[in-house]
Amino acid sequence: MLRHLVRVRVRAIAIAIATSSASSSSSSKISSPLSIPLAFTFRFASSSSMADDSLRKSLADKLAAVEAQGNAVRALKASGAAKPQIDAAIEALNALKLEKASIEKSLLGGSDTREAFRQAVVNTLERRLFYIPSFKIYRGVAGLFDYGPPGCAVKSNVLGFWRQHFVLEENMLEVDCPCVTPEVVLKASGHVDKFTDLMVKDAATGTCYRADHLLKDFCNDRLSRDLSLDSAKVAELKHLLATLDDLSAEELGAKIRDYGIVAPDTKNPLSEPYPFNLMFQTSIGPSGLSPGFMRPETAQGIFVNFKDLYYYNGNKLPFAAAQIGQAFRNEISPRQGLLRVREFTLAEIEHFVDPQDKSHPKYPEVADLEFLMFPREEQMAGQSAKRIPLRDAVSKGVVNNETLGYFIGRVYLFLTRLGIDKDRLRFRQHLANEMAHYAADCWDAEIECSYGWIECVGIADRSAYDLRAHSDKSGVPLVAHEKFSEPKEVESLVITPVKKEMGLAFKGNQRMVVEALEAMSEKEALDMKAVLESKGEVEFLVCTLGKTVTIKKNMVTIQKEKKKEHQRVFTPSVIEPSFGIGRIIYCLFEHTFYTRPSKAGDEQLNVFRFPSLVAPIKCTVFPLVQNQKYEEVAKLISKSLTAAGISHKIDTTGTSIGKRYARTDELGVPFAVTVDSTSSVTIRERDSKDQVRVDVEKAAIVIKEVSEGQRTWEDVWATFPHHSSTSADD
Amino acid sequence: MLRHLVRVRVRAIAIAIATSSASSSSSSKISSPLSIPLAFTFRFASSSSMADDSLRKSLADKLAAVEAQGNAVRALKASGAAKPQIDAAIEALNALKLEKASIEKSLLGGSDTREAFRQAVVNTLERRLFYIPSFKIYRGVAGLFDYGPPGCAVKSNVLGFWRQHFVLEENMLEVDCPCVTPEVVLKASGHVDKFTDLMVKDAATGTCYRADHLLKDFCNDRLSRDLSLDSAKVAELKHLLATLDDLSAEELGAKIRDYGIVAPDTKNPLSEPYPFNLMFQTSIGPSGLSPGFMRPETAQGIFVNFKDLYYYNGNKLPFAAAQIGQAFRNEISPRQGLLRVREFTLAEIEHFVDPQDKSHPKYPEVADLEFLMFPREEQMAGQSAKRIPLRDAVSKGVVNNETLGYFIGRVYLFLTRLGIDKDRLRFRQHLANEMAHYAADCWDAEIECSYGWIECVGIADRSAYDLRAHSDKSGVPLVAHEKFSEPKEVESLVITPVKKEMGLAFKGNQRMVVEALEAMSEKEALDMKAVLESKGEVEFLVCTLGKTVTIKKNMVTIQKEKKKEHQRVFTPSVIEPSFGIGRIIYCLFEHTFYTRPSKAGDEQLNVFRFPSLVAPIKCTVFPLVQNQKYEEVAKLISKSLTAAGISHKIDTTGTSIGKRYARTDELGVPFAVTVDSTSSVTIRERDSKDQVRVDVEKAAIVIKEVSEGQRTWEDVWATFPHHSSTSADD
Repeated sequence: MLRHLVRVRVRAIAIAIATSSASSSSSSKISSPLSIPLAFTFRFASSSSMADDSLRKSLADKLAAVEAQGNAVRALKASGAAKPQIDAAIEALNALKLEKASIEKSLLGGSDTREAFRQAVVNTLERRLFYIPSFKIYRGVAGLFDYGPPGCAVKSNVLGFWRQHFVLEENMLEVDCPCVTPEVVLKASGHVDKFTDLMVKDAATGTCYRADHLLKDFCNDRLSRDLSLDSAKVAELKHLLATLDDLSAEELGAKIRDYGIVAPDTKNPLSEPYPFNLMFQTSIGPSGLSPGFMRPETAQGIFVNFKDLYYYNGNKLPFAAAQIGQAFRNEISPRQGLLRVREFTLAEIEHFVDPQDKSHPKYPEVADLEFLMFPREEQMAGQSAKRIPLRDAVSKGVVNNETLGYFIGRVYLFLTRLGIDKDRLRFRQHLANEMAHYAADCWDAEIECSYGWIECVGIADRSAYDLRAHSDKSGVPLVAHEKFSEPKEVESLVITPVKKEMGLAFKGNQRMVVEALEAMSEKEALDMKAVLESKGEVEFLVCTLGKTVTIKKNMVTIQKEKKKEHQRVFTPSVIEPSFGIGRIIYCLFEHTFYTRPSKAGDEQLNVFRFPSLVAPIKCTVFPLVQNQKYEEVAKLISKSLTAAGISHKIDTTGTSIGKRYARTDELGVPFAVTVDSTSSVTIRERDSKDQVRVDVEKAAIVIKEVSEGQRTWEDVWATFPHHSSTSADD
Repeated sequence: MLRHLVRVRVRAIAIAIATSSASSSSSSKISSPLSIPLAFTFRFASSSSMADDSLRKSLADKLAAVEAQGNAVRALKASGAAKPQIDAAIEALNALKLEKASIEKSLLGGSDTREAFRQAVVNTLERRLFYIPSFKIYRGVAGLFDYGPPGCAVKSNVLGFWRQHFVLEENMLEVDCPCVTPEVVLKASGHVDKFTDLMVKDAATGTCYRADHLLKDFCNDRLSRDLSLDSAKVAELKHLLATLDDLSAEELGAKIRDYGIVAPDTKNPLSEPYPFNLMFQTSIGPSGLSPGFMRPETAQGIFVNFKDLYYYNGNKLPFAAAQIGQAFRNEISPRQGLLRVREFTLAEIEHFVDPQDKSHPKYPEVADLEFLMFPREEQMAGQSAKRIPLRDAVSKGVVNNETLGYFIGRVYLFLTRLGIDKDRLRFRQHLANEMAHYAADCWDAEIECSYGWIECVGIADRSAYDLRAHSDKSGVPLVAHEKFSEPKEVESLVITPVKKEMGLAFKGNQRMVVEALEAMSEKEALDMKAVLESKGEVEFLVCTLGKTVTIKKNMVTIQKEKKKEHQRVFTPSVIEPSFGIGRIIYCLFEHTFYTRPSKAGDEQLNVFRFPSLVAPIKCTVFPLVQNQKYEEVAKLISKSLTAAGISHKIDTTGTSIGKRYARTDELGVPFAVTVDSTSSVTIRERDSKDQVRVDVEKAAIVIKEVSEGQRTWEDVWATFPHHSSTSADD
């Protein structure tokens, strides 16, 4: 599908708009559900463009004041004024300089805080092997990452929940298609011709860059580092950022020349921008004659199977098919860590529906949800995302139809149940120029993280585009049928040339005139009929002859005829929720990360506040001290947990229990069982650090219930005796 | 790793040997666990080579008899004998001809039965969308298949169980690495240079074929279709089949020429065989200067991460890492349906272990298992696979070590719990010529299906080969450390050239002589020391000088010195179980498929006898007749099943209940709930067709327990009232 193209093209607009609204939703305090004193959590610096503009104004004022005071000091010195007078003037100058520096710091500070927060998260993720740059011992490959053991477990949990929440709950037809895809399929989908980014090359070294990235970096750099920009220049650069993705290759090239942008690494001049196809190309079979690509998305595998899947579903609409799998994009120069990579896991749903009936039977189940939505109108008016009841958005037609609304609601539930902060999640509608011409409506679930608002799920009503494209290319009709309970009489216009008369009049040209007549639209034909009836003849342009001929009344009959039809044949519309699993997981890491001081207060400890559902390990089992009896109890509990299918880890190292808790918190393990006697053990909850005492035999079952959500921690806390230990957090 | 190469090369040997032993294990009756009358199940025709040889002898005898009798008839006619006499002779001739035809049928019949059985399975699989040829509307691509909804569910269940059985139970470190792999990694592993098959081209059209396949087809075709072969020719062709994979490109080419083998489609002559690399090649990034490949296996991603994973495991051995993911192989001409494809899912384990201690703490848990094993010795002696207690195989050293034995046992449990028939599963040891020089031992789990014995899991002790290869190429030492509890004194040989004497003797050549001395092995140095001590000087070849020099006693000291070492540094051995998931699933389809007559006896109905664990859907819910009350009950039960996480399907079509059961049996759904009242429902078990009556409120929980294995069907059968219905199977 071409939406990614479109998305790539328009991302900057979205970001520019997002920036202006970031403060409203992001300044809301990130409250910990258990009221933990948070030492380090993530809040955006107030960098909304309004605040930004006022800071710039203050800075300009302050600069003028510093200059004026500097002149005053020089004048005093030159005039030989008294020392106390000069000293006072210098003191005033220094005060002004301090104020100026403080404003500069505010202006630059937002991004510094983000960077520091991100660095803290990423350091923890890399150190604990949530992910690893791929092929690290060979110095890696940009845009390729491995999930290490805890990251892999989180991913597996996210996908497991996705299957439960979407495939199982909705009875979707899941398929699993290959990544290697022949050219014809991606030719039909448009990817071969249009799935490109504009690239420039270092004229001397040949190093490649994305043209829009260079221009964007230039603008952002000027805006954030060059404090002397006047407001006209600021406006110009901001406008450029907002329209960056609308620029043609020629326009981009002109801007790069105008601003004198050079290759960042070498300062060499750059080539003109030209399109680079983002698909990894390969060759299928040994002949070298069958080009193929690594799929850029999983959706095409579903579309080409539509006919079989429709049959499998008893030739009934609506139904949804789903696929989880790898997709590939040969980025020109990957950046933004785990957010823009060359290989990633997509989970896509194609919900096929009668275009005349986009209602959804389960829509009422989500209609009462209320969350941040950012409709097109609000974006255009420069407003920010607002909490809107889904029911209102659908009933007012802001969301195009019930089925689209249903999926928006389901996506909201999916993301928030994973642990995404609902205050940093919004559904942003595509602007008119972001959508492909065929799309009926499109919303992105965007999650705010240190990189800004990131598109993580796209939910689009793509109308009949994809099925039609494959019908046309393959010659296999990908259509649905609606059988009428009784045949319907339909009226249609029939154009019948009278061959004998036509032959006499047009001789060798007869065929082309006949074809032109038959190709008329209903309106054209009715117009002709009217003229023929009133005037007896009409001038008629035959394009294939390149001239006009005269059609007389006796040459053609045009009339409405009634036919009986037994069924309606139509191409279904498709509503497509498409999930970038890696992006969701990265945002989840940022949203669940916090630090808190160690008990001694000399250290900041990292915690991932994962819900049990996604936690890589549900439970750790620790013997309090190294002791054979305790270790046997730990093994016994471990065995019960394995039998119950609860992923856990046993840690028998002699490290202090506080350190072991810290290690486990840093992996986001929600519960820890500590064996401190042979009859009962303690269970500790990660975020509250509260502990209860439970009999050895009951430990595994309590862990199972509380980690699978059959029981809340509050209930466990209310049921079992509390345990407090001075040693628990040293 | 190169093992796949090795495997490809030696497959024919294995098959040739397998054929001779097939009868022993395959003739064992495939008993249905529930004693169902089986109309169509799969048994190999008795095509052991012994039976085969005796049939060929009978056929030759019969042919001679037919010829003799024919001559007799002609002689009688020529001599003008009486009609009754001639008629009697003709009758005898016809009888002989019938007998000959019958023998021919027996000789050819084995493969026909297999083909018919396979066709029945494959038809069902395709019709019910277990799988679909990929990109079918574009006429597909050889070797690429989609899993449709039920196939996808089976695959997901198999992988889920794999994770539970291996990763969770053994606390393995699961990782998830990209498919796109830079050249350097696969250069180090040997794939770039050696992962090839020999290919020939149609000299006129350029169509490509695998050289060994053409020769194999030729041999098999002659053996099975040409009934006039004498025993010498039969032996020659069989020997060729057995040694096919040992042939060099030149030898293969010579055989193709000798037998006059031509391109099968065009009958054109063929090119000489030449190697074709089986990896899909691509290019990483836009420069075109970074070649990459789609990984041919997942294992390399684990090896390159060894250092991080070892650290993650607390720098302790042994530990295992695991990965599930897609792998790619650009087959020259894919065949054997789902068994030899261009893209497939692998699940691989790399268990890293101290080469000096390959014991396994959990080995006793599997040591008492007993199953078909096929050690090297038995294969060489032309015997067949035998049931051997694992304990004996390990203790006698037939299986190289405990850890390898442990994994063989675990693989046996995994496959049989999935539903693989234990009588058609054997563990075959690699012959000496099948194994890479570095491998300590290697066993394949082979499953017998209509294509013969298929390698589905490889379990190899690959010693330190892979880690060493990446250490060498990357310069990053992939090693483990064993800290000594107290430092150990070790003796080593030290060679110290006396520079002053050397300088005087060799002047400008001094450096090269010194280097050559220092490069001596321990043995060479000790030999030199002995000669110097006895004779005072020695002749010494310095390769870099291209000549011999005279070393005198005063020029070098060679002596053993004692050093204290605090740790042992070594490259771990790796034991690798590698699972071809698609192959296992295909064999599972064949092993669980059977047909049984419909109640009316006019039809054969297909059933997949999937264990609940792998069944794509655990349960169907049917209202007995179309009726709003029943449908509401059905929806209620469906909702409870969804909440319990049990995949199911509701079928409210008005089709007869018998037909709906048949549809559900064909998908391998183990249980069906039929709503025939508003207070209670029936639950039917697929294979026995037995039904019990259960209260509506209890239905979902009973289904959950019995499909998750907390309760057996026998127990359900003993607990609830039985239900018999005449309409249940019409």
